[in-house]
Amino acid sequence: MSSQTPPTATTLRADGRRPDELREVRITRGWLDAAEGSVLVEFGRTRVLCAASFTEGVPRWRQGSGEGWVTAEYAMLPRATSTRSQRESVKGRVGGRTHEISRLIGRSLRAIIDVSALGENTIVLDCDVLQADGGTRTAAITGAYVALADAVAWGTAKGLITPKASKPVLTDSVAAVSVGIIDGRPVLDLPYEEDVRAETDMNVVVTGSGDFVEVQGTAEGAPFNRGELDALLDLAVVGTAQLRQLQADALARALERRA
Amino acid sequence: MSSQTPPTATTLRADGRRPDELREVRITRGWLDAAEGSVLVEFGRTRVLCAASFTEGVPRWRQGSGEGWVTAEYAMLPRATSTRSQRESVKGRVGGRTHEISRLIGRSLRAIIDVSALGENTIVLDCDVLQADGGTRTAAITGAYVALADAVAWGTAKGLITPKASKPVLTDSVAAVSVGIIDGRPVLDLPYEEDVRAETDMNVVVTGSGDFVEVQGTAEGAPFNRGELDALLDLAVVGTAQLRQLQADALARALERRA
Amino acid sequence: MSSQTPPTATTLRADGRRPDELREVRITRGWLDAAEGSVLVEFGRTRVLCAASFTEGVPRWRQGSGEGWVTAEYAMLPRATSTRSQRESVKGRVGGRTHEISRLIGRSLRAIIDVSALGENTIVLDCDVLQADGGTRTAAITGAYVALADAVAWGTAKGLITPKASKPVLTDSVAAVSVGIIDGRPVLDLPYEEDVRAETDMNVVVTGSGDFVEVQGTAEGAPFNRGELDALLDLAVVGTAQLRQLQADALARALERRA
Amino acid sequence: MSSQTPPTATTLRADGRRPDELREVRITRGWLDAAEGSVLVEFGRTRVLCAASFTEGVPRWRQGSGEGWVTAEYAMLPRATSTRSQRESVKGRVGGRTHEISRLIGRSLRAIIDVSALGENTIVLDCDVLQADGGTRTAAITGAYVALADAVAWGTAKGLITPKASKPVLTDSVAAVSVGIIDGRPVLDLPYEEDVRAETDMNVVVTGSGDFVEVQGTAEGAPFNRGELDALLDLAVVGTAQLRQLQADALARALERRA
Amino acid sequence: MSSQTPPTATTLRADGRRPDELREVRITRGWLDAAEGSVLVEFGRTRVLCAASFTEGVPRWRQGSGEGWVTAEYAMLPRATSTRSQRESVKGRVGGRTHEISRLIGRSLRAIIDVSALGENTIVLDCDVLQADGGTRTAAITGAYVALADAVAWGTAKGLITPKASKPVLTDSVAAVSVGIIDGRPVLDLPYEEDVRAETDMNVVVTGSGDFVEVQGTAEGAPFNRGELDALLDLAVVGTAQLRQLQADALARALERRA
Amino acid sequence: MSSQTPPTATTLRADGRRPDELREVRITRGWLDAAEGSVLVEFGRTRVLCAASFTEGVPRWRQGSGEGWVTAEYAMLPRATSTRSQRESVKGRVGGRTHEISRLIGRSLRAIIDVSALGENTIVLDCDVLQADGGTRTAAITGAYVALADAVAWGTAKGLITPKASKPVLTDSVAAVSVGIIDGRPVLDLPYEEDVRAETDMNVVVTGSGDFVEVQGTAEGAPFNRGELDALLDLAVVGTAQLRQLQADALARALERRA
Repeated sequence: MSSQTPPTATTLRADGRRPDELREVRITRGWLDAAEGSVLVEFGRTRVLCAASFTEGVPRWRQGSGEGWVTAEYAMLPRATSTRSQRESVKGRVGGRTHEISRLIGRSLRAIIDVSALGENTIVLDCDVLQADGGTRTAAITGAYVALADAVAWGTAKGLITPKASKPVLTDSVAAVSVGIIDGRPVLDLPYEEDVRAETDMNVVVTGSGDFVEVQGTAEGAPFNRGELDALLDLAVVGTAQLRQLQADALARALERRA
Repeated sequence: MSSQTPPTATTLRADGRRPDELREVRITRGWLDAAEGSVLVEFGRTRVLCAASFTEGVPRWRQGSGEGWVTAEYAMLPRATSTRSQRESVKGRVGGRTHEISRLIGRSLRAIIDVSALGENTIVLDCDVLQADGGTRTAAITGAYVALADAVAWGTAKGLITPKASKPVLTDSVAAVSVGIIDGRPVLDLPYEEDVRAETDMNVVVTGSGDFVEVQGTAEGAPFNRGELDALLDLAVVGTAQLRQLQADALARALERRA
Repeated sequence: MSSQTPPTATTLRADGRRPDELREVRITRGWLDAAEGSVLVEFGRTRVLCAASFTEGVPRWRQGSGEGWVTAEYAMLPRATSTRSQRESVKGRVGGRTHEISRLIGRSLRAIIDVSALGENTIVLDCDVLQADGGTRTAAITGAYVALADAVAWGTAKGLITPKASKPVLTDSVAAVSVGIIDGRPVLDLPYEEDVRAETDMNVVVTGSGDFVEVQGTAEGAPFNRGELDALLDLAVVGTAQLRQLQADALARALERRA
Repeated sequence: MSSQTPPTATTLRADGRRPDELREVRITRGWLDAAEGSVLVEFGRTRVLCAASFTEGVPRWRQGSGEGWVTAEYAMLPRATSTRSQRESVKGRVGGRTHEISRLIGRSLRAIIDVSALGENTIVLDCDVLQADGGTRTAAITGAYVALADAVAWGTAKGLITPKASKPVLTDSVAAVSVGIIDGRPVLDLPYEEDVRAETDMNVVVTGSGDFVEVQGTAEGAPFNRGELDALLDLAVVGTAQLRQLQADALARALERRA
Repeated sequence: MSSQTPPTATTLRADGRRPDELREVRITRGWLDAAEGSVLVEFGRTRVLCAASFTEGVPRWRQGSGEGWVTAEYAMLPRATSTRSQRESVKGRVGGRTHEISRLIGRSLRAIIDVSALGENTIVLDCDVLQADGGTRTAAITGAYVALADAVAWGTAKGLITPKASKPVLTDSVAAVSVGIIDGRPVLDLPYEEDVRAETDMNVVVTGSGDFVEVQGTAEGAPFNRGELDALLDLAVVGTAQLRQLQADALARALERRA
Repeated sequence: MSSQTPPTATTLRADGRRPDELREVRITRGWLDAAEGSVLVEFGRTRVLCAASFTEGVPRWRQGSGEGWVTAEYAMLPRATSTRSQRESVKGRVGGRTHEISRLIGRSLRAIIDVSALGENTIVLDCDVLQADGGTRTAAITGAYVALADAVAWGTAKGLITPKASKPVLTDSVAAVSVGIIDGRPVLDLPYEEDVRAETDMNVVVTGSGDFVEVQGTAEGAPFNRGELDALLDLAVVGTAQLRQLQADALARALERRA
């Protein structure tokens, strides 16, 4: 993170960041002993535990296709937030927001995996928010990619993924970041305090090559015009490029699996 | 819809439409006798019944705020689709896709209503898909706006909405359309047959003034680049401008309420 | 409908009907493009969409029996009624009334189908009330029979139903009507306004041959005596005979399937 | 029960009963120590425990009306039947049949109670089938009436029911019996073995005065004609008259409440 | 039960029992006609109906193991208690207490059955509390053992359990009792009135040989010390020895199965 | 933990511990920024995040009592275990084991808190297992006590707990440990690998003063005798005394609350 630039008099952000600056991002691999891939990803105070579970076989509707399956489930601990929220298990149903984010994470990862190279194996990504301070879904996608990469490496090492001539299982990397307009000015990677004030809020999922997987922009207050939309997309591309580098750095380190 | 242009040799669409052409759109107001606003909206074969229910008072968390509330619920009849799907009431839970679309419709409508001018009244929009042939969520938003306008007129006529000096309850209109890339070429308003073939699928919600309320783009196959994204947004702006006119035409007609 | 008789001075009904007169009944076949049979049935303002879904195979408990299966599901849109009711999918459970009516429709249809002539095929009838003004279950049965007949014809045309020597799949037709006692006088086909005032309410399901499939009579206020019961049954036999003719007329028309 | 008549050569019933003969009926009051009314009712092997719970106050929607409320819940123990069935609590939902019968019992009892004489009190009848051998719903109604009478007496003795000048709370008694057609011949009070063989099955709820509260006839096999319907109703009237006497006898005995 | 000892001046219990005295215990076998084993067990006013259902085969996860399976479900009728409680089927979920007790009963019975001698058969014990006056779980275990023994005998008589050379299916008997400290003094077999007053409450499950299967002690008020714990265990051993004898006596009587 | 003793030839435990030795225990306070008390507690590889949420007011049934309320919810992340388990939110119901443990934690904490000194405030303890390697419930209780102490301190500092003359809110500390018999020998604090092999498994909750709050012993294989029970209790008392010291050490350290 280019945190070397000191905040200046013109800084608009409460935490002293420049508009185009990410929060401190930490990616800790191997946080769980048993999971085939696991990452504790932190975007500032936001902390998400991403666990990749590799199992042989695929759901019934996919059997015999020769293709694998990747899916994700997102959830939040009750006290991840500033006030406690009720557990979805106790309510007896998974809420709309939870569903929506789980599906987003799954789609984002499936965009960069070659399911035919994966073979008939399933990888489930559990992204559990331990502490929430904005950007939980983008942190989850960013961390889940690293956990997925470790699970693919595990399956390959175990011989469960049969290598097909020069076809990589992962065709690219993927990362995500939030962008928004605050007081009329586009900013990158919003903590909760900024998120609630933003007029427009956008989550952008970008591949390592810089192409878009998902663009989800929402006017929270006033609708936004094309110029604002363009500025937000520019910012997201800058942010995800930095995240791609941090993912690569994390994966370059040796994984000391504890179990 | 400008269906007078005959399909040419270069037409890429199975139904003979040009890439930038909407399907035939029909908006029938007053389809239900009891609802304060109701519209049967058709985008080609897609048919959605939008019912606006006006009730005095607001949910508990909003009482005393002086502000109203607008929300939406989307659902699909079991045989709206080419093969029957199980009812969510029988499954005992509302699925993720249903939740996601309900929330989208609600946000889209709230973007163009002044809840303080509405006063402490609630309007619920039920959007039930009777027949699905792609674009159900965009048809739902487009039709729900008209039903909402009728419900606001009803509440005003009944004296339940107290007019505040020169503040309109509806600050703008809103419409939505799907766009996508098929065989590398951007097209407008995708029926199901195109939807499943699209490499990228985007739903765009635009106000009457031409600003964006929601932009939701998803790479179904390969990620998309900035140029493609721009072309899709251009197309969506063109399509929603036509829908805005159709909404205005429908609202200009006299409503013969049956009940 | 014999609506040619003008209301007389002795007319007791708000809508001007004679005691033994049905509301205007309309049966529109082919309302859906994809369903193997579909009918929009209207009894006055009551509108029910009946969709028949034909699938090869039967539920597990019936496999190998050589017999088919016919079942039904009834539901109401939230704003079918004068005030909005909560969706059963949102409540997370199907209510008692819904269950009861679904079962009634299924039994009524199974009474006139030869499941062994149907072979190991399943037909599900979805009866969704779009607008409710009394008599929704009887309209549903009456319409569902027509949709069922179309689905059987479809399966026969496709060769999925193997004809057995001179054994028709449908052994008879079936229709239903409500009857009740208002101000001490038996009346036929009650709209909502009469339904709530009725002392006794009865739903009667009758075959084309005039035999009974179901008789469900309920004293809403005072219990009813044998004479009243007899008068109600007489009225129901008259009403269902007319419905049988309307069903036959509808089925005699050419079906222009849109899809 | 007139069980003194020996089976003759013409007897068609496996248990030796004449067509118009009830099974042995036993009504044991005060089976529970705490309930305000409780009855173990037996129709042959069918055993239903009916508990009446009296509470002051009424549901919210009835508050301030000055009227009371009576409702019922029916359920079956998992091993009441010849093979075990899954608990509805474990399934997480109450089935359609259970709902249907609960509603039937409630309506039957409300037909003979004057809710305004009851005052703002609620009586809930729990009818739990301990052993099922056909006719569980009719046994439940017959027993529940006796438990209800005891609960009304309890409430009156406690001064919770304020007597209104010469207006009895219970305006009549109520009992129910099943009738059916087996091998073309009408029979009374069917055990399970007959129930599954019956071509037509009818449950009839009759007041002490001999009027009908509910008539629910269903053709299980072939539809039934008017003559058969009439014969079944005759039989039901005979059977419920006997049950009325047995209820009166039971209520005439001193209640030794154990608690 | 040694109820011949008269209460003395030093008696601390409302019902006149000595601290180490059980309530009157009754074990009625064959209470249901269809169940392979069934017992109505009474500990004073507490009445639990225990039904053992024997089925060939085992759950999928156990197939091919050569071993059988024994499990239990506990529930309470809504009016088993002094005030009515809502049904778990209506709530749509099984409560924590119910789950906890069901699991306890299952574990207790599995401790004394040789599942390999049982062969691939399943026995489900349904323990339904008809009336609750404290000690329902201990009565359930005590009665369920007897019902289990009858079901094992039934399976053996039917040849469904293949005898393995000199290996009994039931390796021991099992019974359970509650003990607690009231006013500083340990007492045996607490009715509800004592249960709510107890400072410490313990349920102890003991085999016929006098060994422990379960010890569950809970400080309701002040924590308890080692001396108190020892006294309670002593009392439980005395009580369960008496229950073992009552179980043996019941099983020694001839079973007159009614069906 | 005294891990300085080297494993000897007589060591029976896979991880080299003596029979009476705890795993390495770590208690990290203030792991969450927002919670009024929060602890990451580790018993070897078992890691439980305990969050205490303090809110003013009590549940309705306790209002006006002047007393507070403490309750707990336990849950496990899907990949806490060696293979992934399905989420309870997705299943739509909380399982029996989860309920059982939540209730145990709540009771254990209520045993050492003076709810009248707490005043009408509520503290909810969420214990989420991030990684499970045996002893999750005992780790949860041990950690939850520390989080509770921090939440009580927070409420006191904020003036929400009104001090009553010399009455402490926490009357004692509480800790828990598992003990079991493996190969006939009692051992302390079982990891998963030992837990599955144990013949008897016991969880013991002990106050700082050495008295018992809960004793839950279960024979997994053969029943256990009184001597074994006594040995297990001795071991548990030793282990919880060490845990009490570790809790005191943790609370003696300064809490650097991050938020």
